[in-house]
Amino acid sequence: MAKMTPRTLSGFMELLPAPQQQMERIMEILRRTYSLYGFTPLDTPVIESSDVLLAKAGGETEKQIYRFQKGDSDLSLRFDLTVPLAKYVALHYNDLSFPFRRYQIGKVYRGERAQRGRFREFYQADIDIIGDGKLSIINEAEIPAIIYKTFSTLGLKRFQIRVNNRKILNGFYASLGLTEQSADVMRTVDKLDKIGPEKVKTILVEDFAIPAEKADEILRFIAISGSNEEVLSALEGYQGRSETFDAGLEELKTVVRYLADFGVPAENFAVDLSIARGLDYYTGTVYETTLLDHPEIGSVCSGGRYDNLAEFYTDRQLPGAGISIGLTRLFYVLGEQGMLNPDLPTAPADVLILPMTEDLSPAISLATALRENGIRTQLHCEDKKFKQKISYADKLHIPYVIFLGEDEINAGVVACKDLTTGEQTKLEPAATIYRIKAGLAEREKGSVILG
Amino acid sequence: MAKMTPRTLSGFMELLPAPQQQMERIMEILRRTYSLYGFTPLDTPVIESSDVLLAKAGGETEKQIYRFQKGDSDLSLRFDLTVPLAKYVALHYNDLSFPFRRYQIGKVYRGERAQRGRFREFYQADIDIIGDGKLSIINEAEIPAIIYKTFSTLGLKRFQIRVNNRKILNGFYASLGLTEQSADVMRTVDKLDKIGPEKVKTILVEDFAIPAEKADEILRFIAISGSNEEVLSALEGYQGRSETFDAGLEELKTVVRYLADFGVPAENFAVDLSIARGLDYYTGTVYETTLLDHPEIGSVCSGGRYDNLAEFYTDRQLPGAGISIGLTRLFYVLGEQGMLNPDLPTAPADVLILPMTEDLSPAISLATALRENGIRTQLHCEDKKFKQKISYADKLHIPYVIFLGEDEINAGVVACKDLTTGEQTKLEPAATIYRIKAGLAEREKGSVILG
Repeated sequence: MAKMTPRTLSGFMELLPAPQQQMERIMEILRRTYSLYGFTPLDTPVIESSDVLLAKAGGETEKQIYRFQKGDSDLSLRFDLTVPLAKYVALHYNDLSFPFRRYQIGKVYRGERAQRGRFREFYQADIDIIGDGKLSIINEAEIPAIIYKTFSTLGLKRFQIRVNNRKILNGFYASLGLTEQSADVMRTVDKLDKIGPEKVKTILVEDFAIPAEKADEILRFIAISGSNEEVLSALEGYQGRSETFDAGLEELKTVVRYLADFGVPAENFAVDLSIARGLDYYTGTVYETTLLDHPEIGSVCSGGRYDNLAEFYTDRQLPGAGISIGLTRLFYVLGEQGMLNPDLPTAPADVLILPMTEDLSPAISLATALRENGIRTQLHCEDKKFKQKISYADKLHIPYVIFLGEDEINAGVVACKDLTTGEQTKLEPAATIYRIKAGLAEREKGSVILG
Repeated sequence: MAKMTPRTLSGFMELLPAPQQQMERIMEILRRTYSLYGFTPLDTPVIESSDVLLAKAGGETEKQIYRFQKGDSDLSLRFDLTVPLAKYVALHYNDLSFPFRRYQIGKVYRGERAQRGRFREFYQADIDIIGDGKLSIINEAEIPAIIYKTFSTLGLKRFQIRVNNRKILNGFYASLGLTEQSADVMRTVDKLDKIGPEKVKTILVEDFAIPAEKADEILRFIAISGSNEEVLSALEGYQGRSETFDAGLEELKTVVRYLADFGVPAENFAVDLSIARGLDYYTGTVYETTLLDHPEIGSVCSGGRYDNLAEFYTDRQLPGAGISIGLTRLFYVLGEQGMLNPDLPTAPADVLILPMTEDLSPAISLATALRENGIRTQLHCEDKKFKQKISYADKLHIPYVIFLGEDEINAGVVACKDLTTGEQTKLEPAATIYRIKAGLAEREKGSVILG
């Protein structure tokens, strides 16, 4: 028969078993961490009606959508988890209680140009807190705590959560009489890291006709840096010129003030006035998270406060605050950088049992006992040579192999070999289980991410 | 602004937060149980190239596929997890070790006619064991153990795993000289439960020209019942007429023989000669699982042994054995039957903290401490009346509410109310945490499914 050559589409991540185990571990940590902060898991369809999903979209996003006809229906695959959340909250409003805190870890689809490290199917891991009409600033202060807890539980140490407030930016530009141009200015200033202050000034002056002195003032403002206290105190010098600015500064102070109570160390947090995050969606605190040793990766967790989650679906004002981790890309980058801890177990099983007798009953009973003790156990009863079976365990990094022969069965013991140390014991089943459990706990001790 | 009416496509399950928590619990039990038996998690793309995905498909299946063009690519959404597994194993053959045991819990897509309880997007939860060239019969004996462990961990008691062997059926029909008609016969016999033996005989005789005496013999054979020993002993009477039959009987005996060692109680297992499971894919043991009190639901977990997983992609012989749970449909049915335990926690948080002071630091520190103890905690700092906050906790079934006022802070205690019993304590934080953890452990004790 003619064979079809198997292949996976480019831009679609398909992991081998060992890295998949690492990915599962990361997802489990995200689920647990988000739950600790009172977020409830949601799962929405991957497919939505195009008119519903694209009520807001336009431009670049729309071009990337996977959109198709099925029967009479015009369907699209979701391209993020925010629009489905807006739909969910508007649709189920009467069944929800507010503030509504949900997390969702799910695949989204964007037909981007294929290139290394860019994915067309990728996981996003989002949390959002949605208020009904109003939402306290404390939620915006809590989000850096969740980011900190998430990344530090994963094992990262050298990362920084950078925070700004859109009201501060909007208020500052308004005080310069640049409200109309503020979108252009922010987009230009966003390039500061890449093109430097000289070029930013040139663009502001030449492309957007901003007077040179105002451009200088913008650059001076954006350049404010130092400890959080130093930045806040410098910002106080700008107070009184714009109500929006003053409101934003109050919010930023509240966010900074409660950080220590939320358990965020000072070194993992910075006020950074150069962060703007997009153009019109966010209205208050905005967040980016960077790996200090890998600034080239850009932000690995971003988000902010918005005033109208679902304005395309409902007249109700539903303000919110949320963040998103681009999990597939993050996982890819961590792998590329060698930052995934290779010492954590990635085997499909903790124990491989090799029965050495015709009658398999004793081996099966032992497997059943191990599993009842929470030990992941595989019986290897295939018709293979002993050496091949050991090499199977070796290749898969299964940590323990148990041999069960006539002698052991008669003596009521099991022979158990630790493949890492080579150490072999002959103990009663209960003692063997105890030893294996202790060894497994030891092996699970490291964090998923190194650094 | 004109609003788009939010809606979710029909045939797509979108759960409210409380049932979603139950669904998550079920998925977690599946992941843990499958892992205990040495299955490694896999995650493959939802989208595949149509030529790859549909290499084998045809007929009904093909009509239901979500298939579309994106740029130059002809793409399809997966309609099961077996074809992606075949592709995965053929594609990554050199990176895998055999037997390869994987589980996958993922969404699949079928554009079926919309009707109550039928879904177009639904979760399948699959396990498969793939051999390279050969695969021991022990794997077929282990599968009922996994089904038993899965459903009993979920809380089900009254279910039965029904097992047959395709070689027994094929061999029996061959011994009657009906090899050519065996597909027609099996399809007809499959309707026995619905149409009764009289009608089955009529169809066999009139539509397929099978002599009446052979039809009678078929009906006698299919009707063999009793304890596993009685059925096996009746089958022994048919030995010696067909090699295939004899091989199948040996396999079935092996499967039955090891059941007790695998921990499967006799009442949850039955040899059932009327089970055939499709027409040409399965070649050995086949499985169905039915809820004894809800036979109308049909099988909730089915599968079997096959000889060629990936024949459309590779010349290698890759035999396997696997089962699949139609999770979305099962969840729907359990909900409809009132079988989801309403006493298990479905709240987004275990504790709701209501700060009663202007300064939120003590409340935030307490929330941080609770979370460090694994307690899912939400701070409620919104500008609402006290009564509204309590009603928020009530509606969401959050079990504990903590009030933190000036008095409590000064006295170094927290006031904690158990909303179920109404009981209120004023204890130090550590003692409060201890009490909450004990209460939560108690609440988690039941099983997800009742019955």
